[in-house]
Amino acid sequence: MPRERRENRRRGAKTDAPPVPVTPPYIKRRIPYFEMLNDDELSIIERNADTILEEIGIVYGEDPEARDYFLKAGATVEGELVKFPRGMCREIIQKTAKAQFTQHARNPAKSVEIGGNNMVLVPAYGPPFVYNQDEGRRYANIDDFRNFVKLAYMSDNLHHSGGTVCEPVDLPVNKRHFDMVYSHIKYSDKAFMGSVTAAERAEDSVSMAKIVFGDEFVDQNCVLVNLINANSPMTFDATMLGALKVYARNNQACMVSPFIISGAMSPVSAAGVAAQSLAEALSAMALVQLIRPGAPMIYGNFVSSMSMQTGAPTFGSPEAAQVMNIGAALARRLGVPFRSGGGFTSSKLPDAQAAYEAANTLNATLHAGVHFALHTAGWLEGGLAMGYEKFVMDADQAGMVRIAAEGIDMSENGQAMDALREVGPGKHFLGCEHTQRNFKSAFYQSALSDNNSFEQWTEDGGTDMATRANTKYKQMLADYVPPELDPAIDEALVEYMDKRKASFPDSNIS
Amino acid sequence: MPRERRENRRRGAKTDAPPVPVTPPYIKRRIPYFEMLNDDELSIIERNADTILEEIGIVYGEDPEARDYFLKAGATVEGELVKFPRGMCREIIQKTAKAQFTQHARNPAKSVEIGGNNMVLVPAYGPPFVYNQDEGRRYANIDDFRNFVKLAYMSDNLHHSGGTVCEPVDLPVNKRHFDMVYSHIKYSDKAFMGSVTAAERAEDSVSMAKIVFGDEFVDQNCVLVNLINANSPMTFDATMLGALKVYARNNQACMVSPFIISGAMSPVSAAGVAAQSLAEALSAMALVQLIRPGAPMIYGNFVSSMSMQTGAPTFGSPEAAQVMNIGAALARRLGVPFRSGGGFTSSKLPDAQAAYEAANTLNATLHAGVHFALHTAGWLEGGLAMGYEKFVMDADQAGMVRIAAEGIDMSENGQAMDALREVGPGKHFLGCEHTQRNFKSAFYQSALSDNNSFEQWTEDGGTDMATRANTKYKQMLADYVPPELDPAIDEALVEYMDKRKASFPDSNIS
Repeated sequence: MPRERRENRRRGAKTDAPPVPVTPPYIKRRIPYFEMLNDDELSIIERNADTILEEIGIVYGEDPEARDYFLKAGATVEGELVKFPRGMCREIIQKTAKAQFTQHARNPAKSVEIGGNNMVLVPAYGPPFVYNQDEGRRYANIDDFRNFVKLAYMSDNLHHSGGTVCEPVDLPVNKRHFDMVYSHIKYSDKAFMGSVTAAERAEDSVSMAKIVFGDEFVDQNCVLVNLINANSPMTFDATMLGALKVYARNNQACMVSPFIISGAMSPVSAAGVAAQSLAEALSAMALVQLIRPGAPMIYGNFVSSMSMQTGAPTFGSPEAAQVMNIGAALARRLGVPFRSGGGFTSSKLPDAQAAYEAANTLNATLHAGVHFALHTAGWLEGGLAMGYEKFVMDADQAGMVRIAAEGIDMSENGQAMDALREVGPGKHFLGCEHTQRNFKSAFYQSALSDNNSFEQWTEDGGTDMATRANTKYKQMLADYVPPELDPAIDEALVEYMDKRKASFPDSNIS
Repeated sequence: MPRERRENRRRGAKTDAPPVPVTPPYIKRRIPYFEMLNDDELSIIERNADTILEEIGIVYGEDPEARDYFLKAGATVEGELVKFPRGMCREIIQKTAKAQFTQHARNPAKSVEIGGNNMVLVPAYGPPFVYNQDEGRRYANIDDFRNFVKLAYMSDNLHHSGGTVCEPVDLPVNKRHFDMVYSHIKYSDKAFMGSVTAAERAEDSVSMAKIVFGDEFVDQNCVLVNLINANSPMTFDATMLGALKVYARNNQACMVSPFIISGAMSPVSAAGVAAQSLAEALSAMALVQLIRPGAPMIYGNFVSSMSMQTGAPTFGSPEAAQVMNIGAALARRLGVPFRSGGGFTSSKLPDAQAAYEAANTLNATLHAGVHFALHTAGWLEGGLAMGYEKFVMDADQAGMVRIAAEGIDMSENGQAMDALREVGPGKHFLGCEHTQRNFKSAFYQSALSDNNSFEQWTEDGGTDMATRANTKYKQMLADYVPPELDPAIDEALVEYMDKRKASFPDSNIS
């Protein structure tokens, strides 16, 4: 628990008072991008994306309305297939899309800037299972969901409450979105994501957001970011397009993300994946702008490599990092924010594999210049499980991204010539004036790394990081204090949910 | 064991035949550098280093000969302190130092290029302890030393046999260098490092190298790289200078490496550390060139951050990565190869902490543009322990560095437009011609990551990565086949050692 929050409690402040954020609500990047391709090479990828759009086309099979938008904008429709004149999608996007926008949190101090030189780190999304050391792996439920919302709320290094932080499989499929959206609002005050599993669930998400933020505010501002996956290769389905249209019409951010396992849903080579992903996203992002010009949106990339022995997705690989790097550069050239990266792994445990793979991906995320890093914390087992220990371990690592993004202090104080002059050869710097002045903020202090001597570590129990993380997340949940929520809003949300839930029968079909 | 090697055995080839390398003997980098500072900022660091050299000076207290070299070259000597006119050291270095050189291995196919666009990954150096899951942590012995030489020999992703891969503490302090150098020659055919713990041990290392390579060859070529640590801040001691002078005179590579825990041996800030480290190294590298103009050398950096609670060194931090990044850029501007990075951690176990911290450092190593990455594999407990499991885990990760350094294939095949045209919307790429043609080399296949389904993984024993690594290293040692060594050379080496060992009494003092 951050010091300020604890002090608020000690001082006898209302325990449900909004906590003072101790770190900035998002990362301001001051370091350059690492660019693996040059401008000429990026132009080749863009040319190939245009060739895909022009010659191969994208299937918008289940959505005549979408095809109609494209037809009116100058595309050719051949049955379910839409083919786009070269440059058409880019032109539509660049005419009205925002390079940067604010996603408002219900606590204004926690609103995030998406795009530009900013970086937002977000919990993992989608796992039907949870893992912890005590219980192993089991299906997730709504209590787990609330727990991860609470943990994200308490993690200063995560800037967002996320979306489906895990699937509450104990609730009916067709009604669990109510409890998910409500939990984000009730147990956190950070920005969050809406439901995309059906158009009406997207409508519910918008309606609940309006209860919190007001109708007019929602129509004019982004309060929801929403994950619209392509059904790669080169296909969008009715479910995702249904959600896309709802969010676009309501001026809420669509994050159009081709979801690709290279070799299965795309070619095996990075340049091929990048062109395909760009083509898919260009078409859907153009659709967003055709539906509501100026609506906020994000170009997303989810690309994993593949085990060529088993066909299983693999994570933390250099090939996946390459695709992410190209994607970020393409998004900058297009002028839209970019989503990718996170703490990926195919490990089933919070072990060394999980950490190597997550760290490889998180480093690539930072270097590429990702704006919205979904899946930063908790991801295990190729996204099938949300790990409690992994969550707090990843959140701890996320703190280093902030420091790294700040870059090197080249001020007089950073140059430290006074310290060098004061100390001189053969002496130590521990007590010098410069060290005293700077030591509190000099180095990132991990909450979970053990840097002690072997002897001290042994005395402390000789634990591994996962065991310390197990203790840590339980302590956080025990220390959790909810953010204040206007009781009238809370009541209105519950009333809305109750009414809607009663209006149609439970279903677990889809 | 690499496929080719196994096949050699199956075919009944001589089991001691030199194995065919399956991967290149070192990494050729084709990606850009990630530069955290611009040219103006790097100039400030260089100016500050010159100020340190001019105004504060470097102590060469125990070595009047070194001071004499500097005095003759234009420096001022005040007692033990040497002060250098601005630019003097840089000028001496740039007149004769090599930007790139070959370190010859006794198997010419495994010689490495140090500097330029090349990268050499090297085992960890120096730990007095070893760790494995079966025994825990214990003192290292010569069998451990041989084991790590064998493991490095068998690791295609490590390009070098290293130096003190662990301290064989079962041998007398003043004689263990014989067995270390001999083990590198006997059990591996990769390039290796010489002893630096006393001038006469450096002489022994050179003498043994001459038995292998011939006197003339050694005088004209680099066959030893040698770690010369500064006694930071701004001090070099007699031991290190003794070794430096021996190696410089013999045209063998000195790797001049300030060893710094920020906040203790330097200021806490990255720009301050970088200036100090550069100043220290500039002086000693100038000394190398004054002793033998043109002798190969490497600018080294070992910098860790520090826990400001306990004073313990910390690893994998963004601050350490910043210093490494500056150091690599300074080395490029100076025109000498750069050593830093590796698989650092302060963890006592091959756990998630070890992996996060090692991966953070290895990623920074790649991005900075390190030429000689000492400590790439095995490092645990802040360098106090060499981990068997950690070694093979790190070596596995090192394979990804090679792929990442190769960059993105922008050929027609890499662009894969034929695959996209062949497959089209909604289909899968698994069977297409392009995938069939490329799948074998498409993605890095980790030997230790488990990417299988939860069910398959459970059936396979539900192991973590460290447990799989434990199995792996034992299998490698069981499969080890020594490289061929000319019996006459072997005999001469043993004879040399026996004679030298008998010529003075054992000592464990130093």
